[in-house]
Amino acid sequence: MSLSRAEKALAREECIVAIENAINQTTFRWGGMKLVSVDQFDRATIAELFSVTDVMKSMVNRVGGCDLLTGKILTTIFFEASTRTMCSFETAMQRLGGQVVRVNASTSSAKKGETLQDTIRCLECYTDISVLRHPQKGSVPGVAKYTVNPLLNAGDGVGEPPTQALLDLYTIHNELGGKVDGLTVVLLGDLKNGRTVHSLSRLLTNYSSITLRMVSPASLAMPDEVKEALDTSSITYTEHRSLHEVMSEADVIYVTRVQKERFEDPEEYLKVQGTFDICAQTLKDGNAKDDMIIMHPLPRVGEIHEDVDSDPRAAYFRQMKNGMFVRKALVALLLKAA
Amino acid sequence: MSLSRAEKALAREECIVAIENAINQTTFRWGGMKLVSVDQFDRATIAELFSVTDVMKSMVNRVGGCDLLTGKILTTIFFEASTRTMCSFETAMQRLGGQVVRVNASTSSAKKGETLQDTIRCLECYTDISVLRHPQKGSVPGVAKYTVNPLLNAGDGVGEPPTQALLDLYTIHNELGGKVDGLTVVLLGDLKNGRTVHSLSRLLTNYSSITLRMVSPASLAMPDEVKEALDTSSITYTEHRSLHEVMSEADVIYVTRVQKERFEDPEEYLKVQGTFDICAQTLKDGNAKDDMIIMHPLPRVGEIHEDVDSDPRAAYFRQMKNGMFVRKALVALLLKAA
Amino acid sequence: MSLSRAEKALAREECIVAIENAINQTTFRWGGMKLVSVDQFDRATIAELFSVTDVMKSMVNRVGGCDLLTGKILTTIFFEASTRTMCSFETAMQRLGGQVVRVNASTSSAKKGETLQDTIRCLECYTDISVLRHPQKGSVPGVAKYTVNPLLNAGDGVGEPPTQALLDLYTIHNELGGKVDGLTVVLLGDLKNGRTVHSLSRLLTNYSSITLRMVSPASLAMPDEVKEALDTSSITYTEHRSLHEVMSEADVIYVTRVQKERFEDPEEYLKVQGTFDICAQTLKDGNAKDDMIIMHPLPRVGEIHEDVDSDPRAAYFRQMKNGMFVRKALVALLLKAA
Repeated sequence: MSLSRAEKALAREECIVAIENAINQTTFRWGGMKLVSVDQFDRATIAELFSVTDVMKSMVNRVGGCDLLTGKILTTIFFEASTRTMCSFETAMQRLGGQVVRVNASTSSAKKGETLQDTIRCLECYTDISVLRHPQKGSVPGVAKYTVNPLLNAGDGVGEPPTQALLDLYTIHNELGGKVDGLTVVLLGDLKNGRTVHSLSRLLTNYSSITLRMVSPASLAMPDEVKEALDTSSITYTEHRSLHEVMSEADVIYVTRVQKERFEDPEEYLKVQGTFDICAQTLKDGNAKDDMIIMHPLPRVGEIHEDVDSDPRAAYFRQMKNGMFVRKALVALLLKAA
Repeated sequence: MSLSRAEKALAREECIVAIENAINQTTFRWGGMKLVSVDQFDRATIAELFSVTDVMKSMVNRVGGCDLLTGKILTTIFFEASTRTMCSFETAMQRLGGQVVRVNASTSSAKKGETLQDTIRCLECYTDISVLRHPQKGSVPGVAKYTVNPLLNAGDGVGEPPTQALLDLYTIHNELGGKVDGLTVVLLGDLKNGRTVHSLSRLLTNYSSITLRMVSPASLAMPDEVKEALDTSSITYTEHRSLHEVMSEADVIYVTRVQKERFEDPEEYLKVQGTFDICAQTLKDGNAKDDMIIMHPLPRVGEIHEDVDSDPRAAYFRQMKNGMFVRKALVALLLKAA
Repeated sequence: MSLSRAEKALAREECIVAIENAINQTTFRWGGMKLVSVDQFDRATIAELFSVTDVMKSMVNRVGGCDLLTGKILTTIFFEASTRTMCSFETAMQRLGGQVVRVNASTSSAKKGETLQDTIRCLECYTDISVLRHPQKGSVPGVAKYTVNPLLNAGDGVGEPPTQALLDLYTIHNELGGKVDGLTVVLLGDLKNGRTVHSLSRLLTNYSSITLRMVSPASLAMPDEVKEALDTSSITYTEHRSLHEVMSEADVIYVTRVQKERFEDPEEYLKVQGTFDICAQTLKDGNAKDDMIIMHPLPRVGEIHEDVDSDPRAAYFRQMKNGMFVRKALVALLLKAA
């Protein structure tokens, strides 16, 4: 073996030891878990997840992949398309040395009248962990009761995809020096329909001294049920119609898309169009902090201009990458005792 | 390397040795075989296949996967969807350390007027073994004459999918103490259209003192051609209209679905509806043996109630899993001398 | 470990050393390259590519695959179907020990209005190298400016797929004793619309004393722009209406399909139909050389009869296989410094 290959093999071995140590230090019962909601997490479990995620990130940067999960197979079962979420889980598994089987759910036996529960239980016979996305609200927790293998919810209709909120929170944690307490987070855009900001808001209630600035058109304001959950927490929040007035204090600006089709009256859309977009000049005019970050769940359609991409504060592609790291940590943790 | 990883590596190595020994003990010319029909099997070859299958099952239970087939690639070429059969072959290959390429046959060059033979020969250039499913009867044996690589028939129209019959037989063999001779097998439901019961019946002619009880509506009785094949064998068979009268003597009840659309007269369907279903109470009322098993090729649509699932005699999910083990054995055997 | 497995492991190790040596001897800056056009190649770079390709071919024949690219992931992103090109890249990566994620581009966020650039940049976050096919002319070079990972163009509309021309040239080089200079190459069929013959002609201008014989119906002759490029090179070319008159001097006959739908007047098609087909008798009647080769990009629809397939001069299935070898070399070279 050439020296460089021997060195790489050694580095991979070191990474596996680091991952095993990180996993062994966790105390929550991760093994075999059915992860269906962010409500299953608290500050302590999030901290455990993020410490394993840090090791995963370092492993990918150092050696790309390792063979921790040799002999394990993950199946992605998507009853509605979500290319990135699917690819993110699949590459997460591959970089851990496991293998992936993708189920094209649209051609599965569900068409023959089979129950969702039976479909998943059959596919489980071949594999070790399942990632499930289904358009019907509550379907994933419903089926989780019957599965034998660990299960990860990749979205169920209007319900929440918990891994998105976790990767969003991990990005804040990772970009801003490992702290979340005390931050000011601006949520921008369509706060009524954007599921990601709802889940993120709920996750943030696990931290102290958080300030949320909610900036949206009046008709797309944060729903009452989310605000009521915040009212019982230590989070301070205010609502705004303009980004400019809160820009300078933001540690994080989390941008979501304002979709034309959400407006009943096209006139109303035309009035706000562009108000919630960000370009390089917007950041300058608003005196954005030097060490703040701009996040977006992607895809974007113009609400962050491409002239922001080269700004070091533009964190959305790193955020995308963090999705893979968080999912790697989850897959490894859930297979821990399996 | 941590002790547990070293132990796992050792266990994997032991599994590979066990597989290699099992394969080396076979005498049939498996290497390079084109498996298109159950007629290619007799009692001796089935015994060889099942002894390798046993080792495969034990390997998966012990270490999940091994790297016996490193460097080999299997391609699944499905001209009609069959999610489970495809996933079963793919995970079989992955658990042997090989890799998989899935061909979406609906977008292949067949549309440009290419012959099936050319399509398969082209794809063979990249891979080592092919699994083919095609809706046209006889198409797979037809193309097998031209292929260079070993080939596995995963179904061709109204023809038989040989691996299904083999996994059904393996389940009987594996669940009932390794013996098949002397068993009483009840075939239940639509025996006219259910291809799996035809193939299984033919495979069972390789064994002695088998009793078949065929239970179906009159209009969905076992076809004459299958019964004629049984007449020339040592199998004893009788036909029935009610499960109850044969339940207590059954070692195996193989359930198939009675589909509404098979009946010309809806009245007739209503008459038999529910007659061929099984629930926990059915088993109790019929005095089913303690050590019998209930099988089903799945998917089911109500013909076995979910209250049977927790009964240890419910073998249908284990049967599904056996599909992967049998296919692992076949893939490894066919690549043996390739 | 059994002796044969130990021997295989050693052989794999030897193959990796050979590949590493071949890659280390290259001087062109392959690492991180965005390969979008054959114009990026000259005689020296082609020679480097082919020397690595030779080693790849020898590795596959000897051990099937190796683990050179452990920890690396390739993504295939096809906005239009091309089953073989995709499978060829995927198996190329797998045989190098890397892993593959296939993106079903038809369900990606492009539908939500995302730019192509963003789509690719997002997918890059999870992987190490991208293979992109898109129906719009110039789209792949356009997006290549924004990508971080190395990129391979697998076709963009009427533009050229550079790897096809390279595999065609490699086949000539490999089949005819490693020389290209001085060969007589017959291009046959639809030379107007056949993209592969355009790219191959341009690549051949890197060699000396090449003679091209262009045989086609008058209405499907080689376009002026390709001939003008040849005029400034050392290539000698002539145009013909009949294969027979050039057959005996051919070192290579490169066949393309004459499609009925290319003719405005069906009468005209009927006149030429069959004129540009090749069967065993055609080769005999034309006194084809014993050591010439017949090539075809495939799929064929009758223009090469199946009675030619068993002729050792029929190189088209070997040509198909060479596609995988050339793509292996490219993937390994582009990931070299990445």
